[in-house]
Amino acid sequence: MKDIKEGEILAKVSTPNDLKGLSMEDLISLCGDLRQYIIDVLSENPGHLASSLGTIELTVALHYLFDVPNDTLVWDVGHQAYAHKVLTGRKQAFQKIRQLNGLSGFPRRDESEYDSFGTGHASTSISASLAMAIADSIKNEQHYHIAVIGDGSMTGGMVFEALNQAGTSSANLLIILNDNGISIDKRVGALSQYFTKITTSATYNHIKNKIWNALGGNTDAFNKHKTFIKRVLFVIKTLFSGKSNFFEALNIRYFGPIDGNDLPTLIKTINDLKKINGPKILHIITKKGKGMPIAEDNPTTYHAPGLFDAKTGVIQHKSHKETEPLKFNEVFGKTVVELAKENEKIVAITPAMLTGSSLNEMNKMFPKRTFDVAIAEEHAVTLSAGFASRGLIPLCCIYSSFLQRGFDQIIHDIALQKLHVVLCLDRAGLVGEDGATHHGVFDLSYLNLIPNIVICAPMNEVEMRDMLYTATKINQPIAIRYPRGKGFVVDWQTKMKQIEIGKAETIQEGEKVAVLSLGTIGNNVLKAVEKINSDDKTIGVYNFRFLKPIDEKLLDDILTKYETIITIEDGVIRGGFGWTVVSYANKKNYKNKIINMGIPDEFIEQGKVSELQEICHIDVESIKNKILEEQSK
Amino acid sequence: MKDIKEGEILAKVSTPNDLKGLSMEDLISLCGDLRQYIIDVLSENPGHLASSLGTIELTVALHYLFDVPNDTLVWDVGHQAYAHKVLTGRKQAFQKIRQLNGLSGFPRRDESEYDSFGTGHASTSISASLAMAIADSIKNEQHYHIAVIGDGSMTGGMVFEALNQAGTSSANLLIILNDNGISIDKRVGALSQYFTKITTSATYNHIKNKIWNALGGNTDAFNKHKTFIKRVLFVIKTLFSGKSNFFEALNIRYFGPIDGNDLPTLIKTINDLKKINGPKILHIITKKGKGMPIAEDNPTTYHAPGLFDAKTGVIQHKSHKETEPLKFNEVFGKTVVELAKENEKIVAITPAMLTGSSLNEMNKMFPKRTFDVAIAEEHAVTLSAGFASRGLIPLCCIYSSFLQRGFDQIIHDIALQKLHVVLCLDRAGLVGEDGATHHGVFDLSYLNLIPNIVICAPMNEVEMRDMLYTATKINQPIAIRYPRGKGFVVDWQTKMKQIEIGKAETIQEGEKVAVLSLGTIGNNVLKAVEKINSDDKTIGVYNFRFLKPIDEKLLDDILTKYETIITIEDGVIRGGFGWTVVSYANKKNYKNKIINMGIPDEFIEQGKVSELQEICHIDVESIKNKILEEQSK
Repeated sequence: MKDIKEGEILAKVSTPNDLKGLSMEDLISLCGDLRQYIIDVLSENPGHLASSLGTIELTVALHYLFDVPNDTLVWDVGHQAYAHKVLTGRKQAFQKIRQLNGLSGFPRRDESEYDSFGTGHASTSISASLAMAIADSIKNEQHYHIAVIGDGSMTGGMVFEALNQAGTSSANLLIILNDNGISIDKRVGALSQYFTKITTSATYNHIKNKIWNALGGNTDAFNKHKTFIKRVLFVIKTLFSGKSNFFEALNIRYFGPIDGNDLPTLIKTINDLKKINGPKILHIITKKGKGMPIAEDNPTTYHAPGLFDAKTGVIQHKSHKETEPLKFNEVFGKTVVELAKENEKIVAITPAMLTGSSLNEMNKMFPKRTFDVAIAEEHAVTLSAGFASRGLIPLCCIYSSFLQRGFDQIIHDIALQKLHVVLCLDRAGLVGEDGATHHGVFDLSYLNLIPNIVICAPMNEVEMRDMLYTATKINQPIAIRYPRGKGFVVDWQTKMKQIEIGKAETIQEGEKVAVLSLGTIGNNVLKAVEKINSDDKTIGVYNFRFLKPIDEKLLDDILTKYETIITIEDGVIRGGFGWTVVSYANKKNYKNKIINMGIPDEFIEQGKVSELQEICHIDVESIKNKILEEQSK
Repeated sequence: MKDIKEGEILAKVSTPNDLKGLSMEDLISLCGDLRQYIIDVLSENPGHLASSLGTIELTVALHYLFDVPNDTLVWDVGHQAYAHKVLTGRKQAFQKIRQLNGLSGFPRRDESEYDSFGTGHASTSISASLAMAIADSIKNEQHYHIAVIGDGSMTGGMVFEALNQAGTSSANLLIILNDNGISIDKRVGALSQYFTKITTSATYNHIKNKIWNALGGNTDAFNKHKTFIKRVLFVIKTLFSGKSNFFEALNIRYFGPIDGNDLPTLIKTINDLKKINGPKILHIITKKGKGMPIAEDNPTTYHAPGLFDAKTGVIQHKSHKETEPLKFNEVFGKTVVELAKENEKIVAITPAMLTGSSLNEMNKMFPKRTFDVAIAEEHAVTLSAGFASRGLIPLCCIYSSFLQRGFDQIIHDIALQKLHVVLCLDRAGLVGEDGATHHGVFDLSYLNLIPNIVICAPMNEVEMRDMLYTATKINQPIAIRYPRGKGFVVDWQTKMKQIEIGKAETIQEGEKVAVLSLGTIGNNVLKAVEKINSDDKTIGVYNFRFLKPIDEKLLDDILTKYETIITIEDGVIRGGFGWTVVSYANKKNYKNKIINMGIPDEFIEQGKVSELQEICHIDVESIKNKILEEQSK
């Protein structure tokens, strides 16, 4: 990466302390410098762009006004915290964000004391910040505690659980609702409509601002005239009923909305709020992609745009060559449409990942059968169960690591009732740059322990299509997991066929060593075997396809025939495919040597998938070496 | 059980069809009959009493007005659905509710077509009912869809997730908020205060009722004067601002509150609401324990009172003999207080199970350090992580099967950040009469796959105390799971001592066969071994205490010394203790015979724990037989 210029003011700022003495003019310049720096870095080192551009003024305001880490600052999800990283001692390191051994793309407690709480999955910030605020009263300390949460994250159920407790507490908690009207896709749901209603209520804002301005935005005056103001605000509220009562019904004082990209206003307002005790919410309106016109106009595209031109913003689209495979999720999206055309009972459900899961086309063709339920994984799973209870065939499409949120609902609402829901787990296995919070490496194990559910993982997109097709034909809960990124087959558009449930595939028979894989990691096995000797047929290679029910008949054959069995999966070994094979062998009293390869019992950080595979020893080279080692024994 | 009289009207009613022609007078009598029948049955066959008594009028009204199963009816949690079971073809069977091979204590789709959706865990009903309502529009059908949800269940996050979607849908969904002001313990949280505020607003109710009555409660008139009424209701709302806007902010029309134990009012109101399309909520106020004065006065005690006198209601308290052990949770509650006295950093968190988890005493002595967060498991876990991030030591106390709701938060907020949270899993293992939804049999496996977390299970309450004590001393995430019901030690009040993390206990050394257990199921092993021959020292007996880290050194010794290893756990075998032992043996290339005993890969229904242990072959006799079998080989 070329050396990136920092801008005049940014060059003087390394930690929040360096902010405190700056003039408003310099602070505003700093925002410009930050914006440029982030654009410059991300143009060459892809990351979450648009969200971070929207929160620059907020970040500067917060670090100007508060004293983190004594005060605490929790960024919900955390991909909007890039300016925060740059301002808190990580300016240079930021150039390697999301790279192996570089900065995480999300806040991490072990990365910086300024990261009060690690995030990645949505909707945790209010719970965590509330705890920090309550802890003060137990420890007899007094600090400020800020949670910054986007409107997209507000729909997650645990936000509501946290607000319910916050409303009865006197904890000194400031929730900043960062409302940019768009999460990743266009936001959905009643709460979102409600936010829009507040935001667009010009009269209401007008009157509210007038009162505030009449008081000179002065907190002393505010406190002095508290009763009067309360009464006036009450009248406004009754005039514009329904505007702020959602939060106030929960006993959380509501302020705003204000322009969150207007630094002086932000600083003034938040400074005033510092003097108001108890839980409160400040609603700010920011522009996703702020300061970069093309990103402002296309916030979904620029959520995480990949490489782009720093000056024009034009994205370096790698034009798709016909000789290259599509992405897995693209094939998934097209396959869903094919299936939905054939079977009108099929519906698709996604928690806020319409684009990410490639359900856009389904949504266009069958809008009444496509449900973006906002960030709400628990609800998404039980909604799917409800659909199935009335004879529909729901494809419940959730990223593997986010489905952890619906774990109880899979057990309680789907599996126990044996309802025909098709769980489609995108982003399974190692996902790369998003790192520890996003790797979908636990799914095989957490599904494996649940009764009544079929679990499968295709080796490529064609097999994924067959599995999806099969999944719609059986009357049973079934989970299909497939990875992020490019597929393996150019001509994926084959006629779909039904696969026998639990039936593994023999790729090649061998003699001494057999390699058993589940999912796309099997392609590494193929490459490893090819490297050893393309004519060498002594290695048995099996694509197991189903974790549950596992192909016991084939396992019997394999355990009888081979001395050594190597299992490979791109999920945690504990409780997964390898353990299932070992357990079966043990149960049937086989004495083979069985080697389990997969993700070890630790969290894997960010990096390229290929780098992470090396770390986990499931890359082609490691597999090749292991096979050779066992062959030669 | 003696033969239980049915009452004159109840005797004529077997299914909802039998209700349709009854006069109001007869319907009211039927409520009395139902009440008496339920009291009579439950006095001899314990179950959930108070909730079911509160919903009798509602049940009669719903089955009088709707046509289940064509219409759908989902009872949230479902323990209030006893009258529903009695009225839907299960009158006789009801006498064996919660018994082995008898009726489930909760709605079950496989038990009756009138049970539209199985429940057990809280807060699922709106998601499921919404799906059923939406399904109509896809299938071109038109039915009514009713979710009955208690105020206690309203705090669960997925309720909010579901409301957020419902508010943008035109689905024909009727949510009945059954508000009895008490869930199991006194309800907590801002939403609860909000409900109280609505309920007690006499003026508001007065005006609202007046308008309704002025229209003769007539829906045609209502529709005719829709605009006018809307305007009037708007004025009322602005006058009594904040009363109903919580739901209306989410675009759900709100009606009520009305007296939910007044059958004619209920029937009239709900019948009117049938004619109003779209999602709507009817707030009804019921009396938990209605019709049984002693239960009305003590709703927490009579939530599930055990055996009682049908006439007087007096509970047959088995007075605790000093020669008998306490319950596990009682010892837990007392131990928490001891620990909290010694260490002011300790705080306790429970999601609505203050009494169930025996945290009442902690709450009395340290109210500022005890947090009942209402039904909100996700929030409870992340709140605990937040506490730990500020140096407190949170004991996060959740029933094992309910902690499934916090699975992602354990991974994402606790384990990844290595935060020192002590997860206390009550009701682990088979719980008996509550059945499939409540058995805590997945915990060992779902925790086992998570990195960075210590997992342990005591063999008795003394060991549980030592584990709790130890847990407060280490700076690491740790989970302790212990069962429902009676302990094993009379003199439990020993001085607590620190246990070495990962260190198993050798109970007796043996020769050929070793039995390795985890948790209280080890007591079955002791009894089995004792039965075989009290002087026979040939059986090795080991209490492993820690699933993770597992005692590898001792495992090496055992695997070297014994031919056959039997592992026993009261959790699912898949991914649990047994698999961990097998996997270790495989990894180290041991060739012993290893037998895994535990819960099979299926859902276990209700029954006495002893009966269920027999079914799972982990009762004393089964263990004994297995040992003898292996010894003789």
